[in-house]
Amino acid sequence: MEQAEIGLIGLGVMGSNLALNIAEKGNRIAVFNRSPEATRKFFAEAGDLQGQIVPCETLEEFVAAIRPPRPIIIMIKAGEPVDQQMAALTPYLSAGDIMIDAGNANFRDTMRRFDGLKDSDLTFIGMGVSGGEEGARHGPSIMVGGTEESWKRVEKVLTSISAKFNNDPCVAWLGENGAGHFVKTIHNGIEYADMQMIAEIYGILRDGLGMSAQEIGEVFGRWNTGRLNSYLIEITEKVLKAADPLSGKPMVDMIVDRAGQKGTGKWSVIEAQNMGVAATAIEAAVAGRILSSQKSERERAETILGLPSLSEAPRDRDAFLADLENALLAAKIGAYAQGFAVMSAASAEFKWNLPMPTIARIWRAGCIIRSQFLDEITSAFTKDPDVNLIVTPAFADMVKETDGALRRVVAYAVLSGLPVPALSSALAYFDAYRRGRGTANLIQAQRDFFGAHGFERVDGLDRPHGPWGSGLSQG
Amino acid sequence: MEQAEIGLIGLGVMGSNLALNIAEKGNRIAVFNRSPEATRKFFAEAGDLQGQIVPCETLEEFVAAIRPPRPIIIMIKAGEPVDQQMAALTPYLSAGDIMIDAGNANFRDTMRRFDGLKDSDLTFIGMGVSGGEEGARHGPSIMVGGTEESWKRVEKVLTSISAKFNNDPCVAWLGENGAGHFVKTIHNGIEYADMQMIAEIYGILRDGLGMSAQEIGEVFGRWNTGRLNSYLIEITEKVLKAADPLSGKPMVDMIVDRAGQKGTGKWSVIEAQNMGVAATAIEAAVAGRILSSQKSERERAETILGLPSLSEAPRDRDAFLADLENALLAAKIGAYAQGFAVMSAASAEFKWNLPMPTIARIWRAGCIIRSQFLDEITSAFTKDPDVNLIVTPAFADMVKETDGALRRVVAYAVLSGLPVPALSSALAYFDAYRRGRGTANLIQAQRDFFGAHGFERVDGLDRPHGPWGSGLSQG
Repeated sequence: MEQAEIGLIGLGVMGSNLALNIAEKGNRIAVFNRSPEATRKFFAEAGDLQGQIVPCETLEEFVAAIRPPRPIIIMIKAGEPVDQQMAALTPYLSAGDIMIDAGNANFRDTMRRFDGLKDSDLTFIGMGVSGGEEGARHGPSIMVGGTEESWKRVEKVLTSISAKFNNDPCVAWLGENGAGHFVKTIHNGIEYADMQMIAEIYGILRDGLGMSAQEIGEVFGRWNTGRLNSYLIEITEKVLKAADPLSGKPMVDMIVDRAGQKGTGKWSVIEAQNMGVAATAIEAAVAGRILSSQKSERERAETILGLPSLSEAPRDRDAFLADLENALLAAKIGAYAQGFAVMSAASAEFKWNLPMPTIARIWRAGCIIRSQFLDEITSAFTKDPDVNLIVTPAFADMVKETDGALRRVVAYAVLSGLPVPALSSALAYFDAYRRGRGTANLIQAQRDFFGAHGFERVDGLDRPHGPWGSGLSQG
Repeated sequence: MEQAEIGLIGLGVMGSNLALNIAEKGNRIAVFNRSPEATRKFFAEAGDLQGQIVPCETLEEFVAAIRPPRPIIIMIKAGEPVDQQMAALTPYLSAGDIMIDAGNANFRDTMRRFDGLKDSDLTFIGMGVSGGEEGARHGPSIMVGGTEESWKRVEKVLTSISAKFNNDPCVAWLGENGAGHFVKTIHNGIEYADMQMIAEIYGILRDGLGMSAQEIGEVFGRWNTGRLNSYLIEITEKVLKAADPLSGKPMVDMIVDRAGQKGTGKWSVIEAQNMGVAATAIEAAVAGRILSSQKSERERAETILGLPSLSEAPRDRDAFLADLENALLAAKIGAYAQGFAVMSAASAEFKWNLPMPTIARIWRAGCIIRSQFLDEITSAFTKDPDVNLIVTPAFADMVKETDGALRRVVAYAVLSGLPVPALSSALAYFDAYRRGRGTANLIQAQRDFFGAHGFERVDGLDRPHGPWGSGLSQG
């Protein structure tokens, strides 16, 4: 029997869909699941694709079914189970085989696993897969980290199953060891920010302008035909227009405003801190999720503090809607600039040489944040890969064109008591980043006063302490 | 010869000052430094206090000079050196001896060191010391973590050297293992936020209203007589009024606006993430430091993007100054509420049972954030220790009284392009926290749409998915 091109362990929804995608694109695939029933059920339901699938009930049989050097995708719960699965699999493998973790791993675990195999003749790929269940089934965005040699072995299969943006496959080798999972983490951090910003704009329309879900859906629908065109705006229109089958009311109005968060949002903020990069819009989004989950606390706070009264509504509604559209675009630029800045710092730290234009390119389709906007980022970084997105010519123009709208929207929201943590963080980021002379001179003076930290002088003279000798004795 | 009550290793500035403080308060102290010259120099300069000091040139001699069970303060560079020092010291110790790390340790290292001695007959205290060099010399705020038994051994000495607020000593045992260093980390995170908020207000006065350093110093001087009365406001006045001895110009105007950051700011944000607590004002402050350090990038961005033009200056300057004062107070409440919320979550996570009123109490003097404000927090938490600071009756009243000013100030700043990341984060925190019905229902709908994450319904019915089955196929 012809050997399979690749193997896959873990037939949950994501794994099953990925396996079907692989088979459908003409690649023979061996599959294994801890419980053989799941394997049988998967195979039974594979229909026309059965001819491309080799269902296996033991690891030995599974490994034997794959053409060496064997790429084996592991798509199971992240964390400890991955280490256990790798340990169980290793005895059956031979020189050159490649274990591929396709789950949402913390890249530091990926680095550890990669390093753990360094002195063996096996190797490891950490692979970020974005696009949810449907992405896995029909074309995800795939971020690969590992050796270049191991990438060559899987390039053809992964290219065949990836999403395509104008026929351009959304998959790439991004660097050694943890590069793929790191980039996936930051992708998710940006996704958090993007969703939070949309929710803040929704809040202004709902609680500030008093619009219905249906009306707000129409606004997002119009925006989706303009520069905000993206998957997230598209589905925002759809969910806002959907009716609840039980009550007949707008579906969103029937959903509790309590959002969960998974590891990747938190990790992206932690790694931004570790890299020493400002990522305030992402942090605001994670905080937004956290506060949303504290619903009973919030309800109590509202009874105690009340809500501020709304600022006078903007007189020209159409102009204000245009402002909201531009504000969202401007704020998005801030969030994406922060995410790319974190990746840039990590690339230097871990010597990955992350290709920024390529990252933007493979996010244009398949993943949750896919958009026209990412095509523009691709162009900007292709011309100028090593600078902050904000100062690339195309985005600098966009910032200059739209930041006024963001200012007006944030001012309206803060005067009205409508929470805009991510929008205002993005704006503060612009304002701090574009100001050559900031206010940290005062902070340096304070630190020198109480801790003799020292400072630099603007005239370059070497007198690193202030004339507050007596001040110190009051410390 | 009479044995010493306590020992101290590490005669750098902090260690020397702490040793002199201990001696001055009538406690006999043995001291040791890696280089004996430093020990000799320290002793030679101790003047009247020599009688209380036992200078030692070997660890053997040093340990023998201390009354068992021996409390030994280690005040050296944080990290690896502490482990090395502990390893070098351990062979000379006997049952019950207590090694005390008084440096700015990461509390996770403290936990590891504490646990590492669990099966021995030695123990470990992690002790946060705040107040800089002068605090160490004349009265720091001291946050102790370790066993209660080890605390009893050092309570008298530490009480004698600590700062006093109305005769109330600013030292306390806060819990087991890492409790003291954790609280010190959050203290520093709050300090970052407090300083950043002051710097933002300074920026509005300088760049918005065009005031001179001297004039701004006078404003802070007036505020220091009101509700903002605090060490940081006091020194802000002083540094703003100080003249540069070289140029004769205001000292702050001669200082480069590039501030460094040490580990504790970053750690406080990372731990807030680990605890799942929103700490956006602290994160904004850390980001402010980061962006300040990217001076050449900022200068380049200003040439590319320019600065927005100022919004029309407020017509009534006195009213606006009153707004700024109230805005700073309101924003401070947000930052402190976040810091205390992080500690509350960590207390549950690590089973420390952190006493919130006590923490506020021991920060009232000795440390950098000391203030009247902390006395009010002490009162609030004494009455109601388990809630968010914002909803305690006294602070709820303060928020209601001052958040309007914060809104007006943030609105003015964002319209003028003046960066107010920490002020606007604090405001967004209020606005999200006080709103019973937020906007995460939209986020939940989106997540269910693209990832079948599920949601809760407001009517409690069990139908956790939306009617967008067809949407999924577009994912």
